[in-house]
Amino acid sequence: RIDGKRLWDSLMAMAEIGATPKGGVRRLTLTEVDRQGRDRFRGWCEALGLTVRVDAIGNMFARREGRDPNRLPVLLGSHLDSQPSGGKFDGALGVIAGLEVMRSLNDLGITTEAPVELVNWTDEEGSRFGHSLMGSGAWAGVYPLEKVYGLQDVEGVSVEQALTSIGYKGEHPAKPFPADAYFELHIEQGPILEREGKAIGIVTGAQAQVWYDAVVTGQDAHAGTTPPSTRRDALVCAARIIDLVDRMMRARGEDGRGTVGQLHVLPNSRNVVPGEVRFSVEFRHPDFAEIERLAAQFPREAGFIARDCGTPLALTELFRIPAQPFDPSCVDLVRQAAARLGLPAREIISGAGHDAVYVARHVPTAMIFTPCKDGLSHNEAESIEPEEAEAGAQVLFEAVLARANR
Amino acid sequence: RIDGKRLWDSLMAMAEIGATPKGGVRRLTLTEVDRQGRDRFRGWCEALGLTVRVDAIGNMFARREGRDPNRLPVLLGSHLDSQPSGGKFDGALGVIAGLEVMRSLNDLGITTEAPVELVNWTDEEGSRFGHSLMGSGAWAGVYPLEKVYGLQDVEGVSVEQALTSIGYKGEHPAKPFPADAYFELHIEQGPILEREGKAIGIVTGAQAQVWYDAVVTGQDAHAGTTPPSTRRDALVCAARIIDLVDRMMRARGEDGRGTVGQLHVLPNSRNVVPGEVRFSVEFRHPDFAEIERLAAQFPREAGFIARDCGTPLALTELFRIPAQPFDPSCVDLVRQAAARLGLPAREIISGAGHDAVYVARHVPTAMIFTPCKDGLSHNEAESIEPEEAEAGAQVLFEAVLARANR
Ligand SMILES: NC(=O)NCCC(=O)O
Ligand SMILES: NC(=O)NCCC(=O)O
Repeated sequence: RIDGKRLWDSLMAMAEIGATPKGGVRRLTLTEVDRQGRDRFRGWCEALGLTVRVDAIGNMFARREGRDPNRLPVLLGSHLDSQPSGGKFDGALGVIAGLEVMRSLNDLGITTEAPVELVNWTDEEGSRFGHSLMGSGAWAGVYPLEKVYGLQDVEGVSVEQALTSIGYKGEHPAKPFPADAYFELHIEQGPILEREGKAIGIVTGAQAQVWYDAVVTGQDAHAGTTPPSTRRDALVCAARIIDLVDRMMRARGEDGRGTVGQLHVLPNSRNVVPGEVRFSVEFRHPDFAEIERLAAQFPREAGFIARDCGTPLALTELFRIPAQPFDPSCVDLVRQAAARLGLPAREIISGAGHDAVYVARHVPTAMIFTPCKDGLSHNEAESIEPEEAEAGAQVLFEAVLARANR
Repeated sequence: RIDGKRLWDSLMAMAEIGATPKGGVRRLTLTEVDRQGRDRFRGWCEALGLTVRVDAIGNMFARREGRDPNRLPVLLGSHLDSQPSGGKFDGALGVIAGLEVMRSLNDLGITTEAPVELVNWTDEEGSRFGHSLMGSGAWAGVYPLEKVYGLQDVEGVSVEQALTSIGYKGEHPAKPFPADAYFELHIEQGPILEREGKAIGIVTGAQAQVWYDAVVTGQDAHAGTTPPSTRRDALVCAARIIDLVDRMMRARGEDGRGTVGQLHVLPNSRNVVPGEVRFSVEFRHPDFAEIERLAAQFPREAGFIARDCGTPLALTELFRIPAQPFDPSCVDLVRQAAARLGLPAREIISGAGHDAVYVARHVPTAMIFTPCKDGLSHNEAESIEPEEAEAGAQVLFEAVLARANR
């Protein structure tokens, strides 16, 4: 069995890096803080005798050799980057549990048939450069590397500059290599498992998404002198589009998701009618056909609002991801491990995007969810119990071992 | 007559300080750039033999002695601070035209009966610390100095710290002293004079205003996993309040003003349901009774929206200024000067707040408006013609001279 206390201690040690006063973590991808997290992770891996390699987008792979040199590696992992005010477990749980799997294999003196590789994917969150699942997306060939290198944060720093400045632009190509399976443990980030008292979510797939960048252009004008008839207020237009996104979500019932999470006003002065507003829009749904309908309806209806307001809207679709079913044989290994351990479990569809979604395009993949308090995530108050982490890591251990020794 | 070319050259020299690439000015109050503007202004005044004194809120007074030591001074001036992306003339015109009045008095060898004092008021714009007309308001006793000192910008720098760091926390008390009159020249910042082909606006008073700070509190949550029923999205609530402000404005017809100019989202990440939104709200109307009605209606209706959204709203009223009529005898001096010079003129009510509004509580006051292109202000494209500046400065000169020699 894996060592629950050691797992928890390492989770807490990682959470010190970028710790926030409210008990959360701010470890934005490719920042100095992210570098510290990566360095600590690399140190832990090397102490176990693993060989660490870094690819051109900063994805880290820590390899443990198997007995049979002809077998393809079994991958496991997640991500160490966080939201701007994120929690301690989103991403870190999967990486540190993977580390605990490696430590336990060493402790138990197990040589697996296939090699095992632990992965830390770059920029899963997408909050800095606007593309979630960036590292796994570049690896999987979803985003061309040159395009990804050119993405910039709000301060104009490009992905390539950021990679170089923290020393994690690696030498290995960022592209799929043959692998036998990929397993990712993650907190659910939603309320279902907790509500139903399940320790384990057997993730059968992930929902579809579409993300946009929106820019509304009005005209800066004096708030005291500019009469209603001559105003072109970019924020009033943006406000009506925000309301539209919410209404479109609610029209889809409890399965609908529609969010404006990021918004910037220019010039952002109290007595100036806003001349420009930039904001993000995203929709999600388990059914890709619904996303296709949303992606047809939203630009049209938002365009009507912008025309009514006299403030042109420029909408850029950033990406559209179909729903991604996971590999039945890998999902089954998760189901069997939970059953063997006597852990209450249920099947679940992931509401969040995960690196597993892109990896699944090339490698048979499955995910394991564990509950989190009040379903809260992307929040500094994100919280799980040590036993929940241990249960998830134990299922991960058994699924990986079964696959590597099959 | 005043020297139109010299006036324009000095306006352009001041506009170099904080010049923006798009032809505007960013000279935020009490910043290093503001210090440079103040230093240049002080240098120009001292070169004319004026005595410059600075009060405890950084207001600058440049005094030219009169013949009669018993006469009260005639004041003139405006402000040198700008919006974050402001124009070259909002404020600067009144100060630099005042300088041109002083230069012309010197050139013509005129000794006025009463002393004349040229004023540069601190922080007229209000964009950095949230209170427009701050320097004149502190001087007029509208805001207690200790309260004003404690106001902070978004980075937590207080007014007192900012004053000290640029060396403009002066030794003279910031409180009204006896004065005979105050004249302020300013661009209209609206479309009326230009539309009607008038060179001069004889400003009879300023409209009423009420300003608020609003904070909506929701809950940060994952955009992909959080179903509609459990979301508490602070931005959706704020969006509906922005729409309310716009509708309340339009319900008052062309005299109504209602603006949300500044807004910040937390944590401001694409895939996080916003947990907090902070924004400004202001309403204006020529009729104070209408402002009183707006100030009763708005908190109530915004509160209903917040309750519906499940996201509490905290609303702070920052200030409420009644409509301010100007002094008939001073207004008459402006009217007479325009008539004598054969300049087409009309009476007008100021849509913007001006330092004159607070000064008028203690000193007989009038204002002179000149047109600006397309009525645009609080915009880098703000623009006036040299002849328009010259006409305004000439009216200012004649009104001040007539008052100082009466
Ligand atoms: N797991 C997770 O929070 N991923 C971030 C990408 C997303 O928005 O779903
Ligand atoms: N004149 C001017 O733009 N004043 C700023 C204060 C206001 O918002 O009216």
